[in-house]
Amino acid sequence: MLIIMRLDSSRIDIDRVKTKVKELNCTPHEIPGSSKLAIGITGMMQFLKEEDFQMLPSVSEVLRVTKKFKLVSREMKSDDTVIKFDDSSIGGNVLQIIAGPCSVESYDQTFEIAHELKEMGIQFFRAGAYKPRSSPYSFQGLKEKGLEILADIKSQLGLKIVTEAMNSNSLNSILEVADIIQIGARNMQNYSLLEEVGASMKPIFLKRGMSATVEDLLLSAEYIASQNNFNIILCERGIRTFETSTRNTLDLNSVPVIKQWSHLPVFVDPSHGVGIWDKVSPMALAAIASGADGLMIEVHNHPAKALSDGYQSLTPKRFNKLLKKITLLSSIVDREFLYEK
Amino acid sequence: MLIIMRLDSSRIDIDRVKTKVKELNCTPHEIPGSSKLAIGITGMMQFLKEEDFQMLPSVSEVLRVTKKFKLVSREMKSDDTVIKFDDSSIGGNVLQIIAGPCSVESYDQTFEIAHELKEMGIQFFRAGAYKPRSSPYSFQGLKEKGLEILADIKSQLGLKIVTEAMNSNSLNSILEVADIIQIGARNMQNYSLLEEVGASMKPIFLKRGMSATVEDLLLSAEYIASQNNFNIILCERGIRTFETSTRNTLDLNSVPVIKQWSHLPVFVDPSHGVGIWDKVSPMALAAIASGADGLMIEVHNHPAKALSDGYQSLTPKRFNKLLKKITLLSSIVDREFLYEK
Amino acid sequence: MLIIMRLDSSRIDIDRVKTKVKELNCTPHEIPGSSKLAIGITGMMQFLKEEDFQMLPSVSEVLRVTKKFKLVSREMKSDDTVIKFDDSSIGGNVLQIIAGPCSVESYDQTFEIAHELKEMGIQFFRAGAYKPRSSPYSFQGLKEKGLEILADIKSQLGLKIVTEAMNSNSLNSILEVADIIQIGARNMQNYSLLEEVGASMKPIFLKRGMSATVEDLLLSAEYIASQNNFNIILCERGIRTFETSTRNTLDLNSVPVIKQWSHLPVFVDPSHGVGIWDKVSPMALAAIASGADGLMIEVHNHPAKALSDGYQSLTPKRFNKLLKKITLLSSIVDREFLYEK
Amino acid sequence: MLIIMRLDSSRIDIDRVKTKVKELNCTPHEIPGSSKLAIGITGMMQFLKEEDFQMLPSVSEVLRVTKKFKLVSREMKSDDTVIKFDDSSIGGNVLQIIAGPCSVESYDQTFEIAHELKEMGIQFFRAGAYKPRSSPYSFQGLKEKGLEILADIKSQLGLKIVTEAMNSNSLNSILEVADIIQIGARNMQNYSLLEEVGASMKPIFLKRGMSATVEDLLLSAEYIASQNNFNIILCERGIRTFETSTRNTLDLNSVPVIKQWSHLPVFVDPSHGVGIWDKVSPMALAAIASGADGLMIEVHNHPAKALSDGYQSLTPKRFNKLLKKITLLSSIVDREFLYEK
Repeated sequence: MLIIMRLDSSRIDIDRVKTKVKELNCTPHEIPGSSKLAIGITGMMQFLKEEDFQMLPSVSEVLRVTKKFKLVSREMKSDDTVIKFDDSSIGGNVLQIIAGPCSVESYDQTFEIAHELKEMGIQFFRAGAYKPRSSPYSFQGLKEKGLEILADIKSQLGLKIVTEAMNSNSLNSILEVADIIQIGARNMQNYSLLEEVGASMKPIFLKRGMSATVEDLLLSAEYIASQNNFNIILCERGIRTFETSTRNTLDLNSVPVIKQWSHLPVFVDPSHGVGIWDKVSPMALAAIASGADGLMIEVHNHPAKALSDGYQSLTPKRFNKLLKKITLLSSIVDREFLYEK
Repeated sequence: MLIIMRLDSSRIDIDRVKTKVKELNCTPHEIPGSSKLAIGITGMMQFLKEEDFQMLPSVSEVLRVTKKFKLVSREMKSDDTVIKFDDSSIGGNVLQIIAGPCSVESYDQTFEIAHELKEMGIQFFRAGAYKPRSSPYSFQGLKEKGLEILADIKSQLGLKIVTEAMNSNSLNSILEVADIIQIGARNMQNYSLLEEVGASMKPIFLKRGMSATVEDLLLSAEYIASQNNFNIILCERGIRTFETSTRNTLDLNSVPVIKQWSHLPVFVDPSHGVGIWDKVSPMALAAIASGADGLMIEVHNHPAKALSDGYQSLTPKRFNKLLKKITLLSSIVDREFLYEK
Repeated sequence: MLIIMRLDSSRIDIDRVKTKVKELNCTPHEIPGSSKLAIGITGMMQFLKEEDFQMLPSVSEVLRVTKKFKLVSREMKSDDTVIKFDDSSIGGNVLQIIAGPCSVESYDQTFEIAHELKEMGIQFFRAGAYKPRSSPYSFQGLKEKGLEILADIKSQLGLKIVTEAMNSNSLNSILEVADIIQIGARNMQNYSLLEEVGASMKPIFLKRGMSATVEDLLLSAEYIASQNNFNIILCERGIRTFETSTRNTLDLNSVPVIKQWSHLPVFVDPSHGVGIWDKVSPMALAAIASGADGLMIEVHNHPAKALSDGYQSLTPKRFNKLLKKITLLSSIVDREFLYEK
Repeated sequence: MLIIMRLDSSRIDIDRVKTKVKELNCTPHEIPGSSKLAIGITGMMQFLKEEDFQMLPSVSEVLRVTKKFKLVSREMKSDDTVIKFDDSSIGGNVLQIIAGPCSVESYDQTFEIAHELKEMGIQFFRAGAYKPRSSPYSFQGLKEKGLEILADIKSQLGLKIVTEAMNSNSLNSILEVADIIQIGARNMQNYSLLEEVGASMKPIFLKRGMSATVEDLLLSAEYIASQNNFNIILCERGIRTFETSTRNTLDLNSVPVIKQWSHLPVFVDPSHGVGIWDKVSPMALAAIASGADGLMIEVHNHPAKALSDGYQSLTPKRFNKLLKKITLLSSIVDREFLYEK
């Protein structure tokens, strides 16, 4: 349920509504960044009635939210969520690219790639210190050592760090380094972790699970939002189907569906989505054309030697060519894109 | 197996190779439109040896084709197949759009849409006279009467006609009207029909089945090509997955895969692929960005009154807006696109 | 819509109802083998009203059928359809097994297998003369020559023949030999073929398409039933999913679903469903336990030398062991099963 | 890699092999319960050579394990794993049933169901105290309060408790109550949790993820086994496909595949698998017929009032009828089954 307040509502009137919500055993959420002054209500809402709120001072409208997800829906908040960083932002009319290697492998490898990306104007650097791998015998990341390297990248190059959290134990050290915390596809329905990272109030980059519907993805985002953390970036990265010519089936259809159903920004990860470097650039362009707010792309200086997922990584040179095409494409989809080197 | 002949081979030398192939109980195919002079061999090839051909006059190279599909593979013919019509073409560096209503519903409806499309510069008009429908109680098309209307569209407006063939019985009348024969997704593995339409030597528009892999699609195309008909346009139109937020999962990943594996042009049908008109334009742009050679799009003057699939049809006005965006996009993907109104 | 007539209705009353249906531009079907005297109505029924029929003499009840499929639904006919052959039957409380090689390969191979199966008490023999294959270069069956061998099997051994029809051309010769005409998974939505074989009034063995929902399968069966041919056996044979450890994902869940939604018998083909002989027996037993009315199983005397699908065939010896287990199982599922050797 | 030791090997010889493995930076695992005396080796094995071990005293054979999963594979241990409890066991030639409501809802509800099940001879009781739900606004379980009720069930009725762990925080209290810890489908690839519960040495009931292949499931089991905890029960509970007539597609094909690839017991959960109570019994029987070692079944005294998943629960009466059929079926699949009331 959504309570629309008059724009000139006093703090007292707002708090009166919130108190009323709590009395009815539900939870009020002031919806941030909206053009309207609105209070979302979540919880077991079967007993709430519109009349409970309609007569309160300054209440202009009471709306039912029809989707199963509430706080993340367009019904709750009609304008796009924009996530602000000191000197940049994600969402709205800006395109952003998050790039970097699959894993932190060594100080030299990570710095070499980070340098090249910074040169090209990239602001968000991705690299995994903790790697969830299907087999316990695959490379699992440099862990703490990897986080230290990322901290150096951040302080020396000024890049914003996007890295994955897999569990509570390591979360504190990750929070110190990461500007955006990634939740991988395999943990999309690890609700305990979602609540925990949600409560950190950091921006969360939430990847779609391999068999998650768009509704499932938005319900998982709702777990984060229910902690009053609206800094959520959704990411399409391919679903499981019968087709085997690509590693996964990158489902670009989800992009216009998410843009319609939710106010959250949506990114696409074509590297994992197709799993073969030579299909990454066409699918990256297709993602932007379909309406995505940005891309996450794997870039590696020596793809053939990468400890994980080298086969799907672009070289810096190929990545740069892609950036140039995205620059041209951005104007067609009415987006700002600022990598012009 | 592929025999590359010297460019100055005499007819006698070419025929000698073809005779040798037949002696070995296989079938020789001169590969059309290739920059090299090449003879493809198909059939039960387990007993063929490279040595059988290497010593024949004018033979420059003998190559094994590793894919299960042969004649339609890039290994057989490295340059793109271009299908020529009197005043236009499909494939190569040109983008084409095939547009029109799902079904021929009446003389007036069909002419009204066709007029508008012609005005916009469209050259290929689609509309079904015979409609394969899941239920025997749904509208099955105007059949012969529909073909007559299409014949009038063709003669009066000069549009090229793309219409579906479902069986042998009606094939002769369809051949008289159609410039391109469409084989629908449900008939993609109706091999008898594929051979029959292949033998007609008309261009064939072959839609991917809902559970067909890209390899399956190319093997079905091979049935047509094995009749020495190389005028084949492949079409991605969505596969079946667990996701229900769109009618099908339009699998744009198949576009770069097909372009790599085959020399045939590949189109995308976003109307059937997503099944909801408001997702058609973003996915149409995404299709072009992913490398498609063209689009098939449903356009209807009164979508709400359409006898089939109205929900996924664009109005002429929305379609025209899309054409303008495609015009801008075409230069980014290095394609010629000629609708400039 | 379904008109239930009083059991003592006169022919005149029945015909009066049928005439009324036709006046309203719909089609009446007398539902065979039902305990009630009932007339199903199909066609464009949006304009029919219950009142049109309720007042006619001998009409006891007028029912709406809620499913998209009509004639094949349990709503139309609540008791199981039993298909009668001279000395045996399919459906109802009897279990039946259809067995034989994938293809007719030679006179000797076919007779050797048929002999062994007859010895074990098998009455229905399957073998393909026309084989739909993904690749045009795979063995396509012995065609007319294969039908001749099947005709000999039939006349000399008295086995009933189940064989596949792929197109109109060969249908006439198949009709002469076959007791049951099989429609393969790839042709499940070849509606022209369905109508044609439906009109033959022969029993039809309709395999589920690889991406067909249960509803799609029943709608395809409806195409046959709408020709007033109710002798339809449905067959689950595996669907396409992401899982690759078996050739297809045999979907036994469809068995109880079909039994609830339709009065038609449902068989399971575990050979195609799993694609590996050593999983065939457990899945065959599981199929019977789930409620199937019978099995189609591939049996080959020399699986390693089979021209198609040898890998999934049982040897006669293993098949015989399976028959013994099915005999034991049949009593648990309250079925008659008569192979006791 | 697997080192087979002579059966009369001394402790010194065994330890010498284990030391050698560690020197080579890999991990040795004594394989429990095997008829052979065997040491499995896991880790980054690309540098191991058979010759490193073949000459050590008491080593009889050195084998490569070809599957990606190692400790859980049949190659490592050919005989079935049997998990022992004080007065019962899981795996081997015994069938077991785990039954109970989806969630602990109240003291009375839980005791009422537990009583009835105990009466029928059930030894393993399932009920969730912590419930992972797609929506944060659905009932999430009674948590600590639920565990207390389960502890009472255990002490008063002597039933063994199977309940789900979702995260580290609650794990300690769950370990005090649970005899078997369940890992739900959504956490199947939560590797941190797998390692943590694995280290507890408790039996683990690991459910297959909705888009997990059988190989993925076995790799997740390997995470547990790599903690030297071999007490793992795998559970098929349905995968995601395009079919919507059942909630999930219960993939019984996985049963014979797992039995071939792994020595671990495999259960089937038809309640979640089909999601509708009236399909549970046929699919439960089918599961046993396909070779499953047991079932997990939801039983609720008032399905219509259940706080979660009531629609898929059997009443005690229907469950009892199913037990009787399973008793009959058990002899056909050569299993012991001991519920004879």
